[in-house]
Amino acid sequence: MKLNCDLGESFGSWQMGLDAKAMPHIDMANIACGFHAGDADVMASTLQLAKQHNVTIGAHPAYPDLQGFGRRSMALSHAEIVHMMHYQIAALDGMAKTAGLTLEYVKPHGALYNDMMSKPNVFTAVLAAIAEYYQPLKLMILATAEQDHYRQLAEQAGVTLLFEAFADRRYTDDGKLTPRSQAGAVLSETEMLQQVQQLVQSGTVTTQSGNRLALQADTLCVHGDNPAAILQIAKIRELLA
Amino acid sequence: MKLNCDLGESFGSWQMGLDAKAMPHIDMANIACGFHAGDADVMASTLQLAKQHNVTIGAHPAYPDLQGFGRRSMALSHAEIVHMMHYQIAALDGMAKTAGLTLEYVKPHGALYNDMMSKPNVFTAVLAAIAEYYQPLKLMILATAEQDHYRQLAEQAGVTLLFEAFADRRYTDDGKLTPRSQAGAVLSETEMLQQVQQLVQSGTVTTQSGNRLALQADTLCVHGDNPAAILQIAKIRELLA
Amino acid sequence: MKLNCDLGESFGSWQMGLDAKAMPHIDMANIACGFHAGDADVMASTLQLAKQHNVTIGAHPAYPDLQGFGRRSMALSHAEIVHMMHYQIAALDGMAKTAGLTLEYVKPHGALYNDMMSKPNVFTAVLAAIAEYYQPLKLMILATAEQDHYRQLAEQAGVTLLFEAFADRRYTDDGKLTPRSQAGAVLSETEMLQQVQQLVQSGTVTTQSGNRLALQADTLCVHGDNPAAILQIAKIRELLA
Amino acid sequence: MKLNCDLGESFGSWQMGLDAKAMPHIDMANIACGFHAGDADVMASTLQLAKQHNVTIGAHPAYPDLQGFGRRSMALSHAEIVHMMHYQIAALDGMAKTAGLTLEYVKPHGALYNDMMSKPNVFTAVLAAIAEYYQPLKLMILATAEQDHYRQLAEQAGVTLLFEAFADRRYTDDGKLTPRSQAGAVLSETEMLQQVQQLVQSGTVTTQSGNRLALQADTLCVHGDNPAAILQIAKIRELLA
Repeated sequence: MKLNCDLGESFGSWQMGLDAKAMPHIDMANIACGFHAGDADVMASTLQLAKQHNVTIGAHPAYPDLQGFGRRSMALSHAEIVHMMHYQIAALDGMAKTAGLTLEYVKPHGALYNDMMSKPNVFTAVLAAIAEYYQPLKLMILATAEQDHYRQLAEQAGVTLLFEAFADRRYTDDGKLTPRSQAGAVLSETEMLQQVQQLVQSGTVTTQSGNRLALQADTLCVHGDNPAAILQIAKIRELLA
Repeated sequence: MKLNCDLGESFGSWQMGLDAKAMPHIDMANIACGFHAGDADVMASTLQLAKQHNVTIGAHPAYPDLQGFGRRSMALSHAEIVHMMHYQIAALDGMAKTAGLTLEYVKPHGALYNDMMSKPNVFTAVLAAIAEYYQPLKLMILATAEQDHYRQLAEQAGVTLLFEAFADRRYTDDGKLTPRSQAGAVLSETEMLQQVQQLVQSGTVTTQSGNRLALQADTLCVHGDNPAAILQIAKIRELLA
Repeated sequence: MKLNCDLGESFGSWQMGLDAKAMPHIDMANIACGFHAGDADVMASTLQLAKQHNVTIGAHPAYPDLQGFGRRSMALSHAEIVHMMHYQIAALDGMAKTAGLTLEYVKPHGALYNDMMSKPNVFTAVLAAIAEYYQPLKLMILATAEQDHYRQLAEQAGVTLLFEAFADRRYTDDGKLTPRSQAGAVLSETEMLQQVQQLVQSGTVTTQSGNRLALQADTLCVHGDNPAAILQIAKIRELLA
Repeated sequence: MKLNCDLGESFGSWQMGLDAKAMPHIDMANIACGFHAGDADVMASTLQLAKQHNVTIGAHPAYPDLQGFGRRSMALSHAEIVHMMHYQIAALDGMAKTAGLTLEYVKPHGALYNDMMSKPNVFTAVLAAIAEYYQPLKLMILATAEQDHYRQLAEQAGVTLLFEAFADRRYTDDGKLTPRSQAGAVLSETEMLQQVQQLVQSGTVTTQSGNRLALQADTLCVHGDNPAAILQIAKIRELLA
């Protein structure tokens, strides 16, 4: 079970995330590409950090919304999604090759990620962007109860999926994340470590209503926002060892 | 003598340049990368147009100044120039490969181009950006009386230069372009065609003061802004045939 | 019946619209505020043009989406809509006062306009932005069959509405504009002039299905995009004289 | 002796500065206007904070360079400087009035501030922007040995100046700030408190070379970046009491 983390989300003079502290503990770095966060300088230093710690790198493209941190849904056409994803992926891809690294996968960010999981036309556009890109890249999406459905669509497009689960979020019965607006959506540290252990040992999570749901997760999403989050990554890493 | 032209300088809903009319007449398309003009959609369609007409493609990176069209000098550090050039070049590079094309060269735009020719530290940074990029790209700069100096610096960096001359601009005695603010800076059509002919036949231009100056030009910069400019490209093309 | 027109939609080096030709024929200029189009230089020159022709000015705020020209819906919160409208309105307001002019009204642009008419929470936020602004401004919205509903909401918020009708668009039975994607959505010139005449004489439009619908319009939206559009404004102006 | 501080420099999801902790200790808040930092939401909350602590507010306009935090000099024309200053000032002005506050002054930010002090044409443009604005605003500049020269230019333009001194920076003999790149440019806390005391008691600072230089300062620039800086403001405040 690989650990993935959103990184490279500083911008200009603004710092965000404890990248240097998170990088040693993770396996996969989802690197912002300049549309919701990150800029050319931040991308270059994040790539160096990933190289130093031998971390697999992925592109973390988003809607073009710096002020909204890519968290506000935008109504883009199929072609607009494909092109803006190509632009962002390519920018990171070429900078990665320049740093001696190879881009392996793409994880859409924020509202683009949520729209991909909830709107079939957005998922189709995201798949097309990956499928049409000149080199093979995997696409990371949310592991839900409908994994087979997504896997089938991806296979038709010739794209390999990576499924991610969330360590610290409570699942609904249909295998989605309980909205943060609801009580109990974010797990306590004890609950989080239990959820990780259960996921690793039995491939299931216990949902909001107490059901057991099977989730095939390739990777676990962790966060590097603050010292407490870094400690949690370390604990999860220990559990997985 | 190849003809190069700045293209892909529309942005969003704003059109600029008669790209579809210029493309059939030129050999090399300098394609905007989103910082002074162009966006992911414009880049994708410009690449298709270049492919259709079998035109060699180059990146046309600029300072990050959309409102100023990259024409306002900005005081960037060495690292900032290198990274923002890598970002722009990489974005076009990956989109070009996705369109089945190969990026061949880089021509800096506007104030970045002017600063490169007038400020040694900017030229050094531009050279470094090209030299460090993961795949070989040529760098297009202005053919002046100091070509040997630039060629020597580029050789040290391991970069191949392309020198461009301007069809429609009068040269000063030191082989620079007469500033547009001065009378006679822009040639009439007759003068322009004479200058092209002289350049091709004898490798010289007649300067402001009437001197003959040797210029070794690999390519000629032409414009596709309006119908009159397109006609001029066609006439230059005929002359070169 | 006043004529209103979207103006000041150039940006940097990109021209859009024949503002100098449209301005003499119109009564109200909806001026872009820099988020979907327009910049500080364009705003200053558009204000001068409005002043010269004694045209009433309004702010034309939009979602922050320059590449999409404010035509892509964005999921902004109530507070985000209020603040970004205040920012745009205030920028134009202060520049107008500096030019010796007074801002009279606000007409939201593009997707913000459409969302205002279709999503009650967006209309509420737009109303709040106008109501909370430090000086009274009218709000221009689409005249539909539900004018009373909107008027009531606006009255509660203490905002005066201006209703606009479209000269060149065919109406549906519920008093909305036939989507451009449908055949017959945009009227021929003859049909357009008939629609204007009917609207002025009887306060009605003939809908898609042939019904007569009452519309109380304070102003008519016209376009200044190209020479043909300018001629149409002139003909409508003549008709209204 | 008033204390002024740059505030409202967060942007979107990125926090910068301990505004809530600095505001209670200062007299004048220089509020970012969205071009180098700040956005409509940040501006609205910063204005509320200033109101709550009864702090005088000023606009802190900058070159349009978010990634560079307005710290990179840009070659703008006179008209471009005037218009982009008007846009930023007006945006804050209208939002301030909406919050029940009155904008009192303007302090240019970063590279615009430095260019204003070192390039006569930029100072002229900044003065023009203030002079032409529809309501009187004071202009805050650096107190140097050439205060009379600046005061004379400002009087001709009809603009009132506010001179600021820096608590924590060592002065050169011509009354400028020692560049941060030089050793001893930034004072220790003890030196800083001594410099403040000397400035208040005798209207002088002791320069790099040990000379005494007369400086007539209306206000002292302090910083609110981190807890240590907040403590320093509190100590300076105590000293001034």
